[in-house]
Amino acid sequence: MDTLPEWSDVLSATRILDGIAHRTPVLTCRTLDHLTGAHVFLKCENFQRTGSFKFRGAFTAVRSLDAKQRRHGVITHSSGNFAQALALAARLEGITATVIMPEDSTPAKLRASRGYGARVILCKPVQASRVEATRREQQKSGATFVDSHDDARIIAGQGTAVFELVEQIQSTEATRDHRSASPLDVVLAPVGGGGLLAGTAIAAKHLCPALRVIGCEPSAADDAFRSLQEGRRIVDFVPRTIADGLRTPLGEMNFAVIRSLVDEIITVSEAEIVGAMRWAWERLKVIIEPSSAVALAPLLARTSRFQGDRVGVVLSGGNVDLDPFFATMPGPYP
Amino acid sequence: MDTLPEWSDVLSATRILDGIAHRTPVLTCRTLDHLTGAHVFLKCENFQRTGSFKFRGAFTAVRSLDAKQRRHGVITHSSGNFAQALALAARLEGITATVIMPEDSTPAKLRASRGYGARVILCKPVQASRVEATRREQQKSGATFVDSHDDARIIAGQGTAVFELVEQIQSTEATRDHRSASPLDVVLAPVGGGGLLAGTAIAAKHLCPALRVIGCEPSAADDAFRSLQEGRRIVDFVPRTIADGLRTPLGEMNFAVIRSLVDEIITVSEAEIVGAMRWAWERLKVIIEPSSAVALAPLLARTSRFQGDRVGVVLSGGNVDLDPFFATMPGPYP
Repeated sequence: MDTLPEWSDVLSATRILDGIAHRTPVLTCRTLDHLTGAHVFLKCENFQRTGSFKFRGAFTAVRSLDAKQRRHGVITHSSGNFAQALALAARLEGITATVIMPEDSTPAKLRASRGYGARVILCKPVQASRVEATRREQQKSGATFVDSHDDARIIAGQGTAVFELVEQIQSTEATRDHRSASPLDVVLAPVGGGGLLAGTAIAAKHLCPALRVIGCEPSAADDAFRSLQEGRRIVDFVPRTIADGLRTPLGEMNFAVIRSLVDEIITVSEAEIVGAMRWAWERLKVIIEPSSAVALAPLLARTSRFQGDRVGVVLSGGNVDLDPFFATMPGPYP
Repeated sequence: MDTLPEWSDVLSATRILDGIAHRTPVLTCRTLDHLTGAHVFLKCENFQRTGSFKFRGAFTAVRSLDAKQRRHGVITHSSGNFAQALALAARLEGITATVIMPEDSTPAKLRASRGYGARVILCKPVQASRVEATRREQQKSGATFVDSHDDARIIAGQGTAVFELVEQIQSTEATRDHRSASPLDVVLAPVGGGGLLAGTAIAAKHLCPALRVIGCEPSAADDAFRSLQEGRRIVDFVPRTIADGLRTPLGEMNFAVIRSLVDEIITVSEAEIVGAMRWAWERLKVIIEPSSAVALAPLLARTSRFQGDRVGVVLSGGNVDLDPFFATMPGPYP
C-alpha cells in the first residue's frame, strides 16, 4: 500500500482544482432545519462538473501524470460516475481515456461516458471480466490505470469538497458578523469504495479536530460498517442496494484512513434512501442520486439524532437515469 | 379595471417581501452558455417558498388587507401553484385561506394546498363551476377574493423576482470588478395569466429601458401571442399543453401592461417544452416544472437566436407530480 494521503495533499488538490472544478453552492433549508432541530448545510456536489464529486479526484490524479504517461492516456473500469469524471478530466488535459464498462450499463451511462469523449469498451458484468479487460487493454496501449477510489491523489481530491464547505460557511457567516465557535459539529458523507469519506475525514479533522465525521451506508451494502466493527476489511458481500454508487467494496487505503479518523458509520434502509431522495426532489427541487440520499437519510429518518448540531452533508451526485420518468410524461401534445 | 401597477408598486412589494420571500439563487451554466453563445442567468424561483414565484404576489396581496378583511380570510380558485402560495401567505399572516380546486386535481396538488393549511373545497373542473363555488363560499364567509394574476398587488409582487435578478447580477459582477454596461440585454419569462410577465416588464423597463422583455408561451395555448397580434384580448381557446401553469387566459390588466411594455412573445412546441425540462433535470440537476421550461426552451431550441446576449430567464417554479416517477423506481429492496 502506498503512503496514506495527508492534509497537505488535500491542500495541493485544492490548488490543482482552482478554476477548473466548480465551487459548488451550499444550500440551506428552513424546513429541514425545522424538522431536525439542526442547522444543516448541504454541499451540492450534484452540481459539480460531470454531476458528481468524482471529478475532483479524477482531475487531481490526471494532473499528476508525467509527460510519458500522458502520451499513453489513462484507463479505468467503472460503471458510473468515475467513468464520466475521468473522461472529462482527461479531455481537459488533452489525453485519451479508456473506460471498461459492464455490458449491462444503462444507455444513459454509456451515453454520458462517450459524451465526455471516453473510448468505452464493454465487458461482462462480473469483477473478473472487468479486471481482465482492463489488463488486456492496458497491455495494448500502455495506458496508466487510475483507480476510482483507492488512490492517494483521488482521496486528496475528494477531500477538497468538505474543505470548500467549511470555507463557504465561514465566509458567509463572517459577512453576517455571526461567526460560530465551530463551523460544523458533524459532517455526513456516503461511503462505498471510501474515497470521499477518507478525503472528507482528512480535511475535516485537520480543519476542526472536534468535528465528528460520520460515514453513511446502505444496510444492504454495509461492508464499511462491519469492517470497522470487526477491525478487518470485509470484501465478500453481495450489495443489493438502489444506491448504485455505493456497491463498490471499501478500498484498502481508504479503510486505513477511515479506521483512524472516522467516528461512526450509520446504516440506512432502502426505504429510507428512496424517501430521502424523494424529499430532496420534492422539497429542495434538486436532483440527487440514491447514493447522495444515503447521507441525507439519517437526518430525515432519525430527526432528533442531530438536534442542536451544525451538520454538513455532502450531496455527492445527481446522475439519475431519467428515461423511465420521461417515458411516463404525457405528450408531447397534441 | 383598477389603476395599472407601476415601478413604485414593485418597490413597495420588495420591502414587503424582504426577509419573508426567499432571495432565490441565480444559476449560470457553462454548457448552456457554450451551446447558445449567450451569457445566461437563471433566476431560480423553483426554489421560492411553496416552489414557485406565486408566493411573491400572494404575500404582497395578503399583506395589503385591512383588519376587517383579515378577520374574514381570503379565498381564491386555483388548480395549482397559486393555491399553495396563498395558503402559506395567509398562514404567515395568521388568517384563514379557502381554495376552490377542481375535483380532478392530482393528489399531490391537493396534499400541497392542505399542507400549507388551506381549507380546500372541490368543484367540477369547468370555469363556471369554479366561479359559482367561489361566489357561494364568499357569500357565506365574507372572505376577500384574491385573483391569481389579474391584480395590481399580485403583478407588483411578481415583478420583484426580476428586480432581484438584476441586483444579484450587478452585485456579483461588482465584486469581480467586472461591471457590464447593462446587466441584461433580454429577459425571458413564461406567460399564462400574465401576472409574472407584466410584473417583469414593469421592473425590467424601469431598471434598464433598453432591456428586451420577451414572453414565452406554449404554441398550444398561444392566447397572449395572438392577443398582441390582433390588438385585442383573446379568451376563447382550449389550452392543450403540458405546461399546466400556463393554461389560464391572459388577464385584462396584464394584457394592458404587456401590450405597452413587452417586446415580443415567442411560442414553443410541446416537444420543445419537454426537451427543455429534461435538459434542466439532467444537466442542471434542478427540478423545473413544464411552465418554467417554456421560458428555457427558446434558448435550447433556437440556439443561435440570442448569440452574444446577456439573457435572464425566470425559472418560475418546480412543482411537478413525482408520483409517476417514484412508481417506476426499483425497490425498496428487501
